[in-house]
Amino acid sequence: MAGSSFGTHFRITTWGESHGKALGVVVDGCPAGLPLCEADIQEYLDRRKPGKNRFSTPRKEGDEVTILSGVFEGKTTGTPISLLVPNTSQKSHDYSEIASYYRPGHADYTFDEKYGFRDYRGGGRSSGRETIGRVAAGAIAAKILKELGITLCAYTKSIGPITIDESRFDPKAILETPTCMPDYIANEAAERYLDDCMQNLDSAGGVIECRIDGVPAGIGEPVFDKLDACLAKALMSIGAVKAVEIGDGIRVSSSKGSQNNDPFTVKDGAICKKTNHAGGILGGISDGSEIVFRVHVKPTPSIFSQQETVSKTGEPIQVQIKGRHDPVIVPRAVVVAESMAALTLTDLLFESMSSRMDNIRKFFDRK
Amino acid sequence: MAGSSFGTHFRITTWGESHGKALGVVVDGCPAGLPLCEADIQEYLDRRKPGKNRFSTPRKEGDEVTILSGVFEGKTTGTPISLLVPNTSQKSHDYSEIASYYRPGHADYTFDEKYGFRDYRGGGRSSGRETIGRVAAGAIAAKILKELGITLCAYTKSIGPITIDESRFDPKAILETPTCMPDYIANEAAERYLDDCMQNLDSAGGVIECRIDGVPAGIGEPVFDKLDACLAKALMSIGAVKAVEIGDGIRVSSSKGSQNNDPFTVKDGAICKKTNHAGGILGGISDGSEIVFRVHVKPTPSIFSQQETVSKTGEPIQVQIKGRHDPVIVPRAVVVAESMAALTLTDLLFESMSSRMDNIRKFFDRK
Amino acid sequence: MAGSSFGTHFRITTWGESHGKALGVVVDGCPAGLPLCEADIQEYLDRRKPGKNRFSTPRKEGDEVTILSGVFEGKTTGTPISLLVPNTSQKSHDYSEIASYYRPGHADYTFDEKYGFRDYRGGGRSSGRETIGRVAAGAIAAKILKELGITLCAYTKSIGPITIDESRFDPKAILETPTCMPDYIANEAAERYLDDCMQNLDSAGGVIECRIDGVPAGIGEPVFDKLDACLAKALMSIGAVKAVEIGDGIRVSSSKGSQNNDPFTVKDGAICKKTNHAGGILGGISDGSEIVFRVHVKPTPSIFSQQETVSKTGEPIQVQIKGRHDPVIVPRAVVVAESMAALTLTDLLFESMSSRMDNIRKFFDRK
Amino acid sequence: MAGSSFGTHFRITTWGESHGKALGVVVDGCPAGLPLCEADIQEYLDRRKPGKNRFSTPRKEGDEVTILSGVFEGKTTGTPISLLVPNTSQKSHDYSEIASYYRPGHADYTFDEKYGFRDYRGGGRSSGRETIGRVAAGAIAAKILKELGITLCAYTKSIGPITIDESRFDPKAILETPTCMPDYIANEAAERYLDDCMQNLDSAGGVIECRIDGVPAGIGEPVFDKLDACLAKALMSIGAVKAVEIGDGIRVSSSKGSQNNDPFTVKDGAICKKTNHAGGILGGISDGSEIVFRVHVKPTPSIFSQQETVSKTGEPIQVQIKGRHDPVIVPRAVVVAESMAALTLTDLLFESMSSRMDNIRKFFDRK
Repeated sequence: MAGSSFGTHFRITTWGESHGKALGVVVDGCPAGLPLCEADIQEYLDRRKPGKNRFSTPRKEGDEVTILSGVFEGKTTGTPISLLVPNTSQKSHDYSEIASYYRPGHADYTFDEKYGFRDYRGGGRSSGRETIGRVAAGAIAAKILKELGITLCAYTKSIGPITIDESRFDPKAILETPTCMPDYIANEAAERYLDDCMQNLDSAGGVIECRIDGVPAGIGEPVFDKLDACLAKALMSIGAVKAVEIGDGIRVSSSKGSQNNDPFTVKDGAICKKTNHAGGILGGISDGSEIVFRVHVKPTPSIFSQQETVSKTGEPIQVQIKGRHDPVIVPRAVVVAESMAALTLTDLLFESMSSRMDNIRKFFDRK
Repeated sequence: MAGSSFGTHFRITTWGESHGKALGVVVDGCPAGLPLCEADIQEYLDRRKPGKNRFSTPRKEGDEVTILSGVFEGKTTGTPISLLVPNTSQKSHDYSEIASYYRPGHADYTFDEKYGFRDYRGGGRSSGRETIGRVAAGAIAAKILKELGITLCAYTKSIGPITIDESRFDPKAILETPTCMPDYIANEAAERYLDDCMQNLDSAGGVIECRIDGVPAGIGEPVFDKLDACLAKALMSIGAVKAVEIGDGIRVSSSKGSQNNDPFTVKDGAICKKTNHAGGILGGISDGSEIVFRVHVKPTPSIFSQQETVSKTGEPIQVQIKGRHDPVIVPRAVVVAESMAALTLTDLLFESMSSRMDNIRKFFDRK
Repeated sequence: MAGSSFGTHFRITTWGESHGKALGVVVDGCPAGLPLCEADIQEYLDRRKPGKNRFSTPRKEGDEVTILSGVFEGKTTGTPISLLVPNTSQKSHDYSEIASYYRPGHADYTFDEKYGFRDYRGGGRSSGRETIGRVAAGAIAAKILKELGITLCAYTKSIGPITIDESRFDPKAILETPTCMPDYIANEAAERYLDDCMQNLDSAGGVIECRIDGVPAGIGEPVFDKLDACLAKALMSIGAVKAVEIGDGIRVSSSKGSQNNDPFTVKDGAICKKTNHAGGILGGISDGSEIVFRVHVKPTPSIFSQQETVSKTGEPIQVQIKGRHDPVIVPRAVVVAESMAALTLTDLLFESMSSRMDNIRKFFDRK
Repeated sequence: MAGSSFGTHFRITTWGESHGKALGVVVDGCPAGLPLCEADIQEYLDRRKPGKNRFSTPRKEGDEVTILSGVFEGKTTGTPISLLVPNTSQKSHDYSEIASYYRPGHADYTFDEKYGFRDYRGGGRSSGRETIGRVAAGAIAAKILKELGITLCAYTKSIGPITIDESRFDPKAILETPTCMPDYIANEAAERYLDDCMQNLDSAGGVIECRIDGVPAGIGEPVFDKLDACLAKALMSIGAVKAVEIGDGIRVSSSKGSQNNDPFTVKDGAICKKTNHAGGILGGISDGSEIVFRVHVKPTPSIFSQQETVSKTGEPIQVQIKGRHDPVIVPRAVVVAESMAALTLTDLLFESMSSRMDNIRKFFDRK
């Protein structure tokens, strides 16, 4: 198995290393008849592209996607969609030194232990560039969801101690600010905080939040494939994520039942919830409310200050990492989190189509 | 699919409702030759059994397990192990009323939306009794892990505002206190807090922590089947869990790289980490350190105070839930979290056996 | 994994040994709202039950099924359906001898090699009784298919040299004759042939054929999950099956393109094929014609004449198998083949629901 | 799902259409440390390459493979191996006509029914070129197996009425003759037969046989993932295959137990079978003997004589297919069958590593 596939009905398989010839993804199970072109995917890839501002590595990657299969006359054919993004700007010579020791906070040591050796160029498969396949596939999932009236909106909620103010929430700011915060004022504070981090040769963590609107009630499977469980896996599988919260998340542990329960009510003739502590999921199944989650992202492990570590041969050494590294992972991970959520939802939406005999009867009558 | 299976190599499939004839689990992929008897499993089931103290529902379930297949002459045969636990104390008449409305914080509404109707007796499949299959299977996984030198220890870290003091950590207390706290003094405070909750017809949330020792480096797959990602899914799939943290968890988002990175060092000739902010997982792969995670559990949604909700026919009503309900879910969920972690680890351990060609060559030579 | 599950959307997991406490199956992914009772399943189980006539082992098993979960108020709930059939007539003392040697044509040796030991009582998991779970689950799949207008009809096509005459095809005979042949005259000849076999302490092989009507065009996935590929796996997984044919099957290898191609034509305004050499499947996808397949079943390996073999300790010995054994496997395997086909089709039908964007749009509009 | 993946532990995902930009495969779960270069894969691809002789389409495809990921310094890294083969010689204008009607024996109609439209250029995804991904991945599987002492040998057993004579079996002939027959004399007769077919604007079917040596006993899972069941799926998923036989295959149905049972014996101190009617598989598990299977391949559906069919709009028409087509599929499918068998075996070998607790204990001790 080896874990490079995600999803059952809408299944993606990613491949590629930081400094190999290319990275890519195969999307299997995309329904036929979806209008799709490279620009649809490029739009998402551009959101995670490096080199856009001073908090992002100056590596100048075009990250241009090519559709190699599965699309004919502008529409998906139902057969696998193969997407390829060449690595154009890799500089292998930068990385020769790190072959000899284990960078703290990186997967160098664990890859060596697991596989006996590793592709040490730029982190190889454990590089953040691995997320290119996720985002390219996520763009397709998001397009399917949009056709069904479902929209996702992820953004930076906090960087270090700087948190957005909900009252200043402005979706335009997400795409315009270098931090991807939906709050221009918080963004400025965060920029200053990151400047400080960089001056101190340090890095910062942060929180990404995502809101999903338009999900019908009934999506997610009871027991192991709960919508929140599948989201948790999808999100925790993003490199630097160390915690996942659904709805009120960690606050539920200090809450009481009388506060945390969301009363049901009726609005415009439809049953809905008065509050949304649950984050749109009850018993692992969407309840028709907005779905809300947060992920906590660790600070970039590549920092420029001196660090203690050991060499491959087991000698304690002091190292100073060189190269090009973002002082914060969060802004570029926003679209990755959004993509993983889109992939999860699409998969569970398709799964839900066979949950009721009455729907199945109608479906096969209609054809 | 429908989500009642977990794992690929060591795969469990659970079944059963709160008030059906029985609940159970089929464990497929258990290696042959493991000594196994019903007492091994019963020990785990007894840890989640109701009726043990005043914070646990007085429902008197024996929850006695029978092994129906897969064990011969005291050892597993390699074929599926079917475990069955009869429901002996269900009182369906208690639940007739709740058929007519949607309990806040429960899955009544979402099941109706998904399936068109629901087994309303005691929550049916969404009942906490669903975890019996997880724990029964988890006991087998934990036994396998123990033979390989891996031990798991889960406990209650906090209930409402009461948190354990690490300096008073006493593992004996986990099995002896009604809260499953490893700290007798915190337990007393938590008991008082829960008494207050009950008097106020309210309920409390809390945090479960788990530490896993002895996991070799190299377990977990890069990208989607990371060890932490698989743990996150396993844990978030437990009914009332709303957040999962690995290692420092939510603290990483306000941390800096210089603090959060764990320096490598050498101890007794072996490479290890000086600190363990990462919680024993780097790049989704175990690094040989202790694995640490926490889950945040919401307050019991069944509270005895009056609540606002709607009837099945869509009329706003006031309800007061009757029956027998724990004021806190946490203590009985401790063994469930431990079980889900054991299942996840066992599955990924088996997966890791084919990750290196040199190991495979030796394996097939030896046979 | 270990292979006790079949299907992705409609997934069954079987368990149980010949002489354990019980056998059973868990059906996960059955849609909610299907009327279902034990009699629906018992009808199928009775078709494979032993002791019905002189060619079937006199072992008197009731093989009575109990539904333990997943059905409420006479309808499936969408949650896993657990079915249990107790072993009531096992006589372990009959089997003590065969623990010491390897029966030719049986899985005794391969189980020992794979697992290090085996449950030798009546073949354990490799017994024909393992098919009880398949048939019980197949009954549910067949009921779903029937609601969608799809019917399956399997029967014995030949036993040893005796083959049915298509011109005498009478479906009533399938359930009435001891051979399950749809031809009373061929049945009589086959009965005489089997009597001869028994007198010679020998056994006979045969062919099962199955015809499936009403399958809409478009079922089956291109490439690896072709309808015929999935059927081939399902059928070859039945104990004694050694060959699977689709449509003209083995005859295609000596045919020519001009003979084997089925011309398309129009009938009652609908496109269809003039002939059906393809057996209803083109490119792995159903074409709307009748689906036809055949399986070749080996002679019962348990014969009463003296046989050469080796003991567990590796000494050449002569053995004479005792006990109760059918002289032919075919008649009781007819319903097993039909069940496996029903399970395969149901799974691929559900899979096909998300193959077109236009259907998905309509589906989520309607809800 | 959509069926473009095969295998669980060693999982391949293929993509690409006959006339798209390229075809390829992603191999996930390949162990680290296998020496691998493009020549290893090219050798297999060259065996299926078109244009090698007068029975193979003159389409001049280089079919040159590039490794895009998963190999570093000449060895596999354990991460996904992405292989790409560009389409260089496609002539789309040849195919414009067939967009308007349904070719008999092809998947044109079923793709249209399933997906609503199709990529009609050269059959799109249903083209024989789809097998490029299978063969490229199969080359890697075969290399792993070879390192473990397992070798596969597939060849043409018959074409139309011409069958090889076992007494003239010469493995050299497989790679040297245009028919891939291991018998120079049968090859000549088959060449004459094919010349006749071509003159009559017709095509021929045939049989492929494969022998696998060196498989240890114990591979394959009981019940659904039997070795023979998995092989049957793998082989039936090859485009034109309509029947799969294991060991004696179809002959078992007219055999008797006394003939078909293989007596066990002892040779050089090891238990083995005196005969091999079973084809090396008992109870779905390898028994240490040679594994033998056959597949029956239908005649090329693209024939140049006039055929009856219907247009897309449902009008009966006469058509004469143009273009370049082999008069027989068999020779180029030989390496495809061998590849599918290698993939199946590798997957089940890895699965078998966790079947015994004693092996698992030793494995994790050694590390």
